[in-house]
Amino acid sequence: MEQRVSLVTLGVRDLARARAFYERMGWVTSGHEDDDVVFFQAGCMIVALWGRDQLAQDSCVVDGGGWGGVTLAHNVGSAADVDAVMAHAKAAGAIIGRAAAPTFWGGYSGLFIDPEGHPWEVAHNPGWRLAEDGSVHLSTGQLKPQASWVDAVAAAQAS
Amino acid sequence: MEQRVSLVTLGVRDLARARAFYERMGWVTSGHEDDDVVFFQAGCMIVALWGRDQLAQDSCVVDGGGWGGVTLAHNVGSAADVDAVMAHAKAAGAIIGRAAAPTFWGGYSGLFIDPEGHPWEVAHNPGWRLAEDGSVHLSTGQLKPQASWVDAVAAAQAS
Repeated sequence: MEQRVSLVTLGVRDLARARAFYERMGWVTSGHEDDDVVFFQAGCMIVALWGRDQLAQDSCVVDGGGWGGVTLAHNVGSAADVDAVMAHAKAAGAIIGRAAAPTFWGGYSGLFIDPEGHPWEVAHNPGWRLAEDGSVHLSTGQLKPQASWVDAVAAAQAS
Repeated sequence: MEQRVSLVTLGVRDLARARAFYERMGWVTSGHEDDDVVFFQAGCMIVALWGRDQLAQDSCVVDGGGWGGVTLAHNVGSAADVDAVMAHAKAAGAIIGRAAAPTFWGGYSGLFIDPEGHPWEVAHNPGWRLAEDGSVHLSTGQLKPQASWVDAVAAAQAS
């Protein structure tokens, strides 16, 4: 399997509400108003909103009813950009899980939760390269190495 | 907020098991063996594996314990490629949720569930453009329009 994700589908209980939220966040879909699935082109991939019950059935899983172990992140180029997206999310009706602040791994992030309960971290990670096209790339050693997570967690736990 | 996803983090209960599964699927990480988070460069974005309890806490959510409304998909260029990835996933230890078969929306897909319970649809969608770099693009009218989902669902429900 190639090392990529083509589509992230977010199951929603109220499609119109979910769609309106992402549109308030500035996202644009070419879909029709009465579509029962909404697709957003998201860089190299696609984000979809679909009925949660239908998605659970299609995914051959039992819906635990809450969060299920997947969190998305949106990386931006600076702490100020994190603040701006977080303010936008709050104005658009998101729940603010945690306000933007410096993180233990040397970056800066906040977290909002969309009206359907899906969390998004908004982050500035100086150790990753954010290209002009919005793509995000793991550093290859010239910046913060991944192993520093281990040290950072240990330091945070010890403090 | 720009229309893109930078990072999808999959919460896992057994990081070594999860990492080994994705490595058996052919994915490569530059991380160290004892890292407490594993990053995979996935096209324009990054996929991470991290402890599910830590991710829940970091995401400011209560873990429902099961699936929580997010499903990933991996699109490929043909039905034969779907079959190949599904066979690979089965050999790598995935649970096969549904065997590959034609879908109501005119494509062909199967679904596997990784050892941590995260479902992946493997799909060939003739209505989307799969570029050589692996990026996936919504068609712009020259192929299957999104509105056909509505008709397809109605037809499937009526049949």
